[in-house]
Amino acid sequence: MATYQLHCFAQSGNSYKAALMLNLIGADWEPVFVDYFVKTQTRTPEWREALNEMGEVPVLVHDGRHFSQSGAILTYLSEKSGQFGPRNENERYEVLRWLLYDNHKFTSYFATYRFMSGLMKSGDPAVLTFLKSRITTSLAVVDKHLAGQPFIVGDRPTIADLSLCGYLYYPVEEHGFDFAVDYPAIAAWLERIRALPNWEHPYTLMPGHPLP
Amino acid sequence: MATYQLHCFAQSGNSYKAALMLNLIGADWEPVFVDYFVKTQTRTPEWREALNEMGEVPVLVHDGRHFSQSGAILTYLSEKSGQFGPRNENERYEVLRWLLYDNHKFTSYFATYRFMSGLMKSGDPAVLTFLKSRITTSLAVVDKHLAGQPFIVGDRPTIADLSLCGYLYYPVEEHGFDFAVDYPAIAAWLERIRALPNWEHPYTLMPGHPLP
Repeated sequence: MATYQLHCFAQSGNSYKAALMLNLIGADWEPVFVDYFVKTQTRTPEWREALNEMGEVPVLVHDGRHFSQSGAILTYLSEKSGQFGPRNENERYEVLRWLLYDNHKFTSYFATYRFMSGLMKSGDPAVLTFLKSRITTSLAVVDKHLAGQPFIVGDRPTIADLSLCGYLYYPVEEHGFDFAVDYPAIAAWLERIRALPNWEHPYTLMPGHPLP
Repeated sequence: MATYQLHCFAQSGNSYKAALMLNLIGADWEPVFVDYFVKTQTRTPEWREALNEMGEVPVLVHDGRHFSQSGAILTYLSEKSGQFGPRNENERYEVLRWLLYDNHKFTSYFATYRFMSGLMKSGDPAVLTFLKSRITTSLAVVDKHLAGQPFIVGDRPTIADLSLCGYLYYPVEEHGFDFAVDYPAIAAWLERIRALPNWEHPYTLMPGHPLP
């Protein structure tokens, strides 16, 4: 059994944040496939009881302990590995601030929009319009930030980058945002992260692609 | 000038999280009124440049440093004051996990729903239905969690509680959720927090109520 188990599936960008981190730090890890699309496994009482009361992936298992919420998992792994973490107190609050922004305003709307419009081919048009408007606002905030510096906090990649990029490598057909055209600083930053040793695409890094 | 300045307004539950914490720890603090409703001040380029590129309140100013994102502010204040923080490593990840859940799934939808339906009296019905469905899911997660323990992490209040409760003291007329009826564990928990020394309601703790 590998040192780390990650309960995840390929279409989950929140899982990808943790899986990418595990790969980048060279951890001994293995994915545990969670069947969300056929069995809605994360929402069952049994799964909530055994793994995460919040009903969500990813869940990281290490040394018999369970961790959930990608931002907490990233923080744990950066502290364990000494990699991709903040270097001082100022950076620590900056990293935390961007992890929170990602969860509150960036990933949250983007993931839901992609899920509805790109994966399920569903969603009320008014809801999709609402989500898209929120997404363009938060993409603009991040693009402006990255126009002035190569990574989210300081001059090197941290877990804040790995959090914010979690959904952005999925095919444009799934979400409709062409970063190279509309958000050039984000597109360049995604290429910088892609160039890191051991970077891998979510659809090869985690099980469950393509959809059944 | 007080030791801490908090840029905020009374209707912002995210501001309230920070304001309540400042009051509970007995800090020397003062609110700085941000005119969101008439001037949409947080969204202006000048305000973003001077205070927060994310275009949001709250912003805490202390020792010439600026902090934003309520979860980062709460973490900073717990570390400065030695109050309402985690007591060990396990609690630290638990607190972080619930701060993230609050931002991703709890406050995010609740705040937007209340803003549209209760304050602006606007919002497409389909969008309101979508938000309400998300809210009932996350309220159920928190209510179930609190049915088994008095506070979110362990047996005493932490910043995780102060984050999650941020929007829940606003009048039921503004959001339509009657916790005492539908979420009894949440209602009892809100009373426990309300009983803390120096607790104060958002509409008296921060400037800007009632709306112009």
